[in-house]
Amino acid sequence: MNKKGRLIVCSGPSGVGKGTIVRRYVEEHPGVELSVSATTRGPRPGEEEGVHYYFISREQFEEKIAGDGMLEYASFAGNYYGTPRDKVEQALSRGRDVILEIEVQGAMKVKARCPEALLVFIMPPSFEVLRRRLSGRGTEDAATVARRLSAAAGEMEKARGYDYIVVNDDLEEALADFGAVITAAKCSIHDMKYLIDEVQKDAQTCNDANS
Amino acid sequence: MNKKGRLIVCSGPSGVGKGTIVRRYVEEHPGVELSVSATTRGPRPGEEEGVHYYFISREQFEEKIAGDGMLEYASFAGNYYGTPRDKVEQALSRGRDVILEIEVQGAMKVKARCPEALLVFIMPPSFEVLRRRLSGRGTEDAATVARRLSAAAGEMEKARGYDYIVVNDDLEEALADFGAVITAAKCSIHDMKYLIDEVQKDAQTCNDANS
Repeated sequence: MNKKGRLIVCSGPSGVGKGTIVRRYVEEHPGVELSVSATTRGPRPGEEEGVHYYFISREQFEEKIAGDGMLEYASFAGNYYGTPRDKVEQALSRGRDVILEIEVQGAMKVKARCPEALLVFIMPPSFEVLRRRLSGRGTEDAATVARRLSAAAGEMEKARGYDYIVVNDDLEEALADFGAVITAAKCSIHDMKYLIDEVQKDAQTCNDANS
Repeated sequence: MNKKGRLIVCSGPSGVGKGTIVRRYVEEHPGVELSVSATTRGPRPGEEEGVHYYFISREQFEEKIAGDGMLEYASFAGNYYGTPRDKVEQALSRGRDVILEIEVQGAMKVKARCPEALLVFIMPPSFEVLRRRLSGRGTEDAATVARRLSAAAGEMEKARGYDYIVVNDDLEEALADFGAVITAAKCSIHDMKYLIDEVQKDAQTCNDANS
């Protein structure tokens, strides 16, 4: 029996709503957990250790990198961000599915190391919808919105390397599609070969008994 | 926009409940239809032309074979059974998904001709469950049950060539898994490349307008 959990990588441009989809999915599926990243930046008000991030020092982070302890990592604005390998592997060994919500470069590194990982990219239904969502937030100035849109175009090009694309037009539909993709992965021939083996063995025993 | 329907092939051993799953799925999804086979055997009481089968003569059937008009066909007990290619292609062109409920040899022929077809095999949770279901019907004698079980073992070996395995232990769960597999196929990178192209084109236009 295939008891190991599945690694699910979820990415998408800023403003596409991937955080909402992933959180809702995890809330509704107790066998699934969201990976918590490690970072060298300090906690912001309200951020909790082990919930939002593992807050570690630059020395600790670089030790982890040197010891192959990060599944993927990147540096933004002078700080490291990464996925601690041990936490993910422990959860998978306990049969739990683990979702990594990470950006596209990190996702490609994970795919190279863990080819069995399921890569899901959340897309807006159109570029115009993304532009309206980012502008409509009203929390960023025009230059920031333009920078994010330009980054989004580059990220969406990387979507070609993902296994599945989920369109977030209607949130409930996107959530259903996200769930279907994960359910289907569990039904894939790759994951189900063990059952064919089992049933074949039973059939052999049964036919031997009848002959 | 990718508007062509998807060809879905569903197989499984006798007694596994694939007919129920497929009929329920089609009832609940108006955009999906079940392919009707052609046969040279005469109609049985209650069987309707175009609903249960297309009843055609041996000459007509052999003409279809000669003219590449059968997607797959086989001969059982002196009669031909097959899938008329034109009906399937017409439905797919109208954007409708089409389910073929056919046996494993036919499925392999369809896969060879239509590599984009989605092959789903319905499995019992164990060989013992299948044995109990076939015996429990009480409509067949022991020799028939033994023959069907032996055929089932061979069919399940062929399941390795399918894309997905859906286990029918609980009918509602099997139906949900069957639906998830079809939904996921529509989210696959293969089917969604057109959307990435579209969004990239929009992004280009938008960035040009801003520069």
